[in-house]
Amino acid sequence: MKRKKLPFILSLATVFLLSGTETSGAKEHPCLILTKSGVEEAQRILGKAPLFDSTLEEIRAEIDGVVSLPIEVPFPKDAGGGYTHERHKKNYMQMYHAGILYQIYKDKKYALFIEKMLKEYAGLYPSLPLHPVQKSKYRGKLFWQGLNECVWLVHASQAYDCVYDFLSAQDRKYIEENLFYPMVEFISEDNHETFNKIHNHGTWAVAGVGMIGYVMNDNDMVQRALLGSDKKGDTGFLRQMDMLFSPDGYFTEGPYYQRYSLQPFIVFGQAIQNNEPERDIFAYRDSILTKAVNTSLQLAYTDGQFFHLNDALDKTWHSIELVYGVDIAYSVTKDAGLLAIAEEQGRVVLGDAGLSVAKALQDNQKQPYLLKTSLIRDGSEGNEGGIGVLRIGDRKDQTCVVFKATAQGMGHGHFDKLSISFYDNGKEILQDYGAARFLNIEPKNGGHYLPENDTWAKQTIAHNTLVVDESSNYGGKLEVAEKYAPTITKFTDRDNYKLVAATESNAYPGVTMSRTVVLVKLKEIGNPIVIDYFTASSETEHQYDLPFYFMGQLMHTDFQYQAFSEFREPLGKDNGYQHIWKEAMGKSEKSSASMTFLNGNRFYTITTLTTPDTELFLNRIGANDPDFNLRNEPAFMLRERTKNKIFLSVIEPHGEFNPREEYTAQPYSAIQNIGLSPDKNSIQITTVNQEKIMVAIR
Amino acid sequence: MKRKKLPFILSLATVFLLSGTETSGAKEHPCLILTKSGVEEAQRILGKAPLFDSTLEEIRAEIDGVVSLPIEVPFPKDAGGGYTHERHKKNYMQMYHAGILYQIYKDKKYALFIEKMLKEYAGLYPSLPLHPVQKSKYRGKLFWQGLNECVWLVHASQAYDCVYDFLSAQDRKYIEENLFYPMVEFISEDNHETFNKIHNHGTWAVAGVGMIGYVMNDNDMVQRALLGSDKKGDTGFLRQMDMLFSPDGYFTEGPYYQRYSLQPFIVFGQAIQNNEPERDIFAYRDSILTKAVNTSLQLAYTDGQFFHLNDALDKTWHSIELVYGVDIAYSVTKDAGLLAIAEEQGRVVLGDAGLSVAKALQDNQKQPYLLKTSLIRDGSEGNEGGIGVLRIGDRKDQTCVVFKATAQGMGHGHFDKLSISFYDNGKEILQDYGAARFLNIEPKNGGHYLPENDTWAKQTIAHNTLVVDESSNYGGKLEVAEKYAPTITKFTDRDNYKLVAATESNAYPGVTMSRTVVLVKLKEIGNPIVIDYFTASSETEHQYDLPFYFMGQLMHTDFQYQAFSEFREPLGKDNGYQHIWKEAMGKSEKSSASMTFLNGNRFYTITTLTTPDTELFLNRIGANDPDFNLRNEPAFMLRERTKNKIFLSVIEPHGEFNPREEYTAQPYSAIQNIGLSPDKNSIQITTVNQEKIMVAIR
Repeated sequence: MKRKKLPFILSLATVFLLSGTETSGAKEHPCLILTKSGVEEAQRILGKAPLFDSTLEEIRAEIDGVVSLPIEVPFPKDAGGGYTHERHKKNYMQMYHAGILYQIYKDKKYALFIEKMLKEYAGLYPSLPLHPVQKSKYRGKLFWQGLNECVWLVHASQAYDCVYDFLSAQDRKYIEENLFYPMVEFISEDNHETFNKIHNHGTWAVAGVGMIGYVMNDNDMVQRALLGSDKKGDTGFLRQMDMLFSPDGYFTEGPYYQRYSLQPFIVFGQAIQNNEPERDIFAYRDSILTKAVNTSLQLAYTDGQFFHLNDALDKTWHSIELVYGVDIAYSVTKDAGLLAIAEEQGRVVLGDAGLSVAKALQDNQKQPYLLKTSLIRDGSEGNEGGIGVLRIGDRKDQTCVVFKATAQGMGHGHFDKLSISFYDNGKEILQDYGAARFLNIEPKNGGHYLPENDTWAKQTIAHNTLVVDESSNYGGKLEVAEKYAPTITKFTDRDNYKLVAATESNAYPGVTMSRTVVLVKLKEIGNPIVIDYFTASSETEHQYDLPFYFMGQLMHTDFQYQAFSEFREPLGKDNGYQHIWKEAMGKSEKSSASMTFLNGNRFYTITTLTTPDTELFLNRIGANDPDFNLRNEPAFMLRERTKNKIFLSVIEPHGEFNPREEYTAQPYSAIQNIGLSPDKNSIQITTVNQEKIMVAIR
Repeated sequence: MKRKKLPFILSLATVFLLSGTETSGAKEHPCLILTKSGVEEAQRILGKAPLFDSTLEEIRAEIDGVVSLPIEVPFPKDAGGGYTHERHKKNYMQMYHAGILYQIYKDKKYALFIEKMLKEYAGLYPSLPLHPVQKSKYRGKLFWQGLNECVWLVHASQAYDCVYDFLSAQDRKYIEENLFYPMVEFISEDNHETFNKIHNHGTWAVAGVGMIGYVMNDNDMVQRALLGSDKKGDTGFLRQMDMLFSPDGYFTEGPYYQRYSLQPFIVFGQAIQNNEPERDIFAYRDSILTKAVNTSLQLAYTDGQFFHLNDALDKTWHSIELVYGVDIAYSVTKDAGLLAIAEEQGRVVLGDAGLSVAKALQDNQKQPYLLKTSLIRDGSEGNEGGIGVLRIGDRKDQTCVVFKATAQGMGHGHFDKLSISFYDNGKEILQDYGAARFLNIEPKNGGHYLPENDTWAKQTIAHNTLVVDESSNYGGKLEVAEKYAPTITKFTDRDNYKLVAATESNAYPGVTMSRTVVLVKLKEIGNPIVIDYFTASSETEHQYDLPFYFMGQLMHTDFQYQAFSEFREPLGKDNGYQHIWKEAMGKSEKSSASMTFLNGNRFYTITTLTTPDTELFLNRIGANDPDFNLRNEPAFMLRERTKNKIFLSVIEPHGEFNPREEYTAQPYSAIQNIGLSPDKNSIQITTVNQEKIMVAIR
C-alpha cells in the first residue's frame, strides 16, 4: 500500500495558489478571531448573552489582578512545568486576554500592559540563543520546544492585533523588528523543516506566522504560511488541510492529538476567513475543517472524554481547543447540536464565533448533540483503515466499543493494530492505556514522555489485541509500520446490531489477523453485549496472546488457577512483557472460561471459548518500573500455541451493585456458554435460563 | 482501666423504669413515624413542600409498578445478595412504602397489597426452620442473619400500622397470631441473648419488637423492648441509650456502624415519642439521640463520606439511616444547619419529621451545616479515649486529619491505636483501609466479611500507626483489647492551629506510644500542613514500623532506593505483613527524607526525620491474596530498630496539576528540612526559601 500518491489533492491546492489574492492597503484591527465588527457587536449585546459575559468576566477578574503587577519576562531556563516555561505561557495568555479586554472596554490599562510586555520581549528576543534544555530535537528560544514558541506567537499575534492601533508607529516598528520578524524568521527559516512539515508542529508554525502576517499586513508572510516556504503549495497550511485529515476528518495521530492540532487549524482558518473571505476556507476540501471538529467530538465517550488511542492522556471536549472548534464550527455551520457541547464547556471564544454561540444559547436554539455509531476512515485518501465506533444507548447510559484499525499515526502512534477498548455505564471498562506521561509535571522526566512510553505504552502487549510470539506489530519499528494499514472489511449499523471488521496481514510476517466486533442488544440478555471474534492464521506455529485490560476488581472466575501469591515475576523479558507481573495462571476444564469483575455499580463478565491448551492469565502492570511511572492495573489474558487460532469472546455488562440502597442484582453472567457455528458465521449463546441465541458475526 | 462501672447511668434507667407509663385503651393508627395528625398535615400541604412531594412521587412510581404483580414470598434459601434474601428485603420496603401511600392517598390497592403480602408471610412463617445458610451465629428464619429479620419487622410493623384500621379483626388476628407474635417470640425469646445484648443487633431487635408492640397495643411487649426481657432495665432500649453512646454521642464501633445503628435508635425513639410523649425520650441522657445524629455527621468529610474507621465501607450521610437521623433530629431540635444536609440528601422521611423538614426548606430556613474541629470522646462515661477531628477550611476546600484513639469498638473494631487518616481537597489522601468486604456481593464470600478482613484489614499494619515487632496491638486479641483504651492528653482548637494528642501503653507490653498531631496553617507555606509527632519508648530494643497508606501516584523521592523490579516478595509472614508486597527499600543520606505523590490535582509531600538506621520502604497491598479480595494500594513506611524512637513527619499539600489548562504549579515541597527543638516542644521547619518556622507540638 503506497501512501504518497495524491494528484487530486495537489490540484486542489494549486487552484488556491492561483486564486490567492493580494492583501493590500490599510487594514482594520483587530482582524483575526475577534474583528472590528465583532467588537462593536460585543459592546452592543454586553449583558445579554450570559455565556459570553461570564467568560469575559472571568478573564477580566484574572487580568485586573495582574495588570498593575511588575512584568516578568525571565531569561529562558526551565523545561515544561518549570518556572520560566510556565511564566512565558502565562504571559501570552495574559496578553491575549488583555487584548480582548482592551478592545471591548477600551480601557488603556490593558493596552499599556501588552505594550510593556511586548517591549520587554522585544528587548530580550534578539539576544536569545537556543533554549538551554536539550531534550527536544525541535528546540525553541523562549521554550524548550519550538512548538511552544509557535503557540506563543498564535496568542501574541492576537494581542498585538488588539493594540495595533493603540501603539505608536515607532513602538510598532521596534516590536516588529525586534520580536515578530526575528521570531517568524526563527520559526519559518531557522526551522524551515518543521515549518514545511505535514505535521501538527507545522500547523502551529504556519498558523503563528500567517496570523502575525495578517496583523502586520505582510502578504509574503501569509503566502508562505498558506503555501509553504517556496509558495508552491506542496507544503503550508492548505497542503496540511489536504494531507493531515482523512476525508472523514480524522487526524492520523488519534483523538488526543487531533484535539491539539485542531486549534491552529480552526483558529488560523477563522483568521483566513476574516482576512480573505474570498478563499471560502471553510468550504475547502468538502468543509474539512468543520468536519474535523465533528469527528473529534465523535471520538469521545458520553462524558466528553476522548478515547485513549495512541499517546493519549485524559482530555475531554471541554478543553480549550474544542471551545475554539465548537464555537467556530457553529458560527460556520449553525449546527444546533454543537450548542449543547458549548453549554457544557461553560465558556466561549471571546471573538465573533463565541458571540454567535452565546447569543444562540440565550435564544434557546440548543439541540441534543448525538454520538453516533460510525466508521471513521484514516489516510488522506481514506484508504488506510479506520476506527469503528459502535454505540448503543444515549448519553445517559451508553455501551460503546471502539475498534482501532488505523494506520500507524506517525510518532505518537502505538503498535496496536485491531485493538479494542470498551466503555459502559459512563466509565472506561476495557482500557487503552494511552501514554505513559505526566504532562508538565517536572519531577516526572520534565513533564515529557517517560521511557515507559516506548518500553510499555506503545508496545502491542499494552493493548487489547493479539500479540504474536511476544513481539510487537512490525517488530516495533515505526518506519515499517508507516508502510501499512489494516483493511476494513465490513461495517454494519442497524438498530441494536452494529458490526465492524478488519484484517491485517503485515503486522506479523506470515500471520493474517482478522477481527470482527459486534455490539448487539438481545432481548434475552438485559444489556448490550460485545461479541469479539479474533482469528489468527499462519502456516507455522506461533504463541498467540490476547489480553483484556479490564478496569475493576475481580469478582469471580469459573476456572481454577494457581495464584502467585508469595512471589511475583514478570511475564516476559521484552516488548512490554517485562512490565507485566504474572499474578495467576490457569486452564478451563470446560469449552469456555469466564471471569467477572466489578466496575462502579455494574458487573462485567468476559466469557471466552477455550481448548485444553488455552492458558488463562491474570496479570498486572507494574514490573520493571523502578520510578513508579506506571499505573498498576490488571489484565485477563488468553494464550495458545498453535498455527490457526480463533479467539471468540463475549463481554457482557450485567447486574447492579448498589451500596447506598444495599442491594445487589445479578452478580453472575446471564451467559452459560458460547459456541461457534460450524460455518463460523455465527455465535451460539446459551443463557443460564437455557435460551439459545444465534448471532451473526460475519 | 475498668469499663463496667456505670452507677450514674444505671440510675437514669431506673427513673424511667419507675415512670414508664401503661399504654391502654383504643389506639389511633398510624402511630409510629407517620401519625394520624401527620397524615392530615401531609394531605393538607401536598404539592407545597417539594422535597416531600418528590420523595412521595418516587415511591408511588415504584409501588404503582408492583401492586398488581403477583406477590412473591419465597421459601428462604440464599445468603446476602442472593435471590430470596433480596426478595424479602424488597418485600418489606414495598409494604412500608405502600402503607404510606395508603394513608396519604387512601387508595385501597395499596392496603390490599399489604394485606395480601402479610397473609402470605403469615402462611409461611410458622413452618419456617432456621435459615439454611449457616454462616452467621445469629441466624434468622427469613434471612441468614437474625439482624435482617429485625429490620424486616421494623418496616413491616409500620406497614401493618398503616393498614391496621383497614384490616378486618379476623385478618388482624390471623396475621398477629401467625406472623408477628411468632416473630417477636423468635427475636425476643429464641434469641433472647441478642435481644438483651448491649449491641446494635440488640437495638434492631428491641426496635422491631417495641414498634409492633405499640401497633398491637401490647404493653408488655413494649416494656420488654424498653427495659429488657425481665423488664428490670439493665438491658433493653433505655439501657442501650445509656451504654452504646459516649456522652458525646459516639458509638464505639465507629461511624460506619454508628450510621447503621442510628436508624433503630432514632426510629424507635420517634415511635416512643409519638406513643409515650410523657417519657420525653429525646431529652433522655442530655438529648443523647439527637447528639448522636450530630456526632455521626461530624464523623464525615466534606462530601459526606464517613471516615473509614474500623469495619467501614463507603457510606455517606446521604444514606437512608441519616435521612431518618437528620429529619427526626431536625423535628426535635429545629437546628437549621440540618436542613442543608436534608437538601443534599434529596429525600425525606415520609412521616411527620420529613414533613417538617420539607416545609422548613420550602420556607428557606436552611443554614450551612458546619463541620467543626472536635474531640469526640469514647466510652459510655467518656473516659475511653476518643477521636480527634482537626479541620481547617470550609466545605469547599478543607484539610482534615482524623486521629483515632478510641476503645477497641467491639467485634468491628480494628487494632489501630493512635492511627490517623488524612483528607484534603475533597479526597482521602492517607487512607484508613476500612473493611475487606464486598457488601451483598454473593460471589465474594456471600457478601459477608472476607477472610482478609481478619488477616489484613483489622491488623495494626493495615493502619497509619506504629507497629512494634511486626505484631498487632494487644497481640491481635479482642478480649485483651477490650480492657484498654488510650488516654487523650491534649486537645487544642485555635484559629489555624489545632492539636490532639494521646498516649497508650498497653497495646504493646513494655512500650509506651504517644502521638501528637497538629494541623496548622502557616503564612510561609500555602496550604495547612499536618505535623505528626510519634514517640515510642521502651527499655528493650524493638522493631518500630510506621506506615503511611498514601493514595496517589508516586512522583518523587529525595532518597535513593533499591526497587524490587524483577521479583517481588511479601514484607513479612504474619499479622497482615504477609499481604504486603515490598516494592522498594532505601535510606536517606541526610537527616530527613521526603516523598511526593499526586492525588487528583494536588501534590502531597511527606517529609520525615531520619537517622542513618532509618529504613524507608515503598510497599503495596496485595500479597497472599489468591482470590483478589484486596485493593492494591501503596504505602510509604519507616522502620527502625531501637529502644526509644521519635518519628517526626510533616504532611504537606502543595501545588496544582491542571491537565485541562495544561499547567503545573509547585510540584515540589515548600519544605527543605525539619528538625526537633532540643526540649522537644517544637518542630523547626526550614522552607526552600530559607525561612525558619518554629511550631509548638506540645
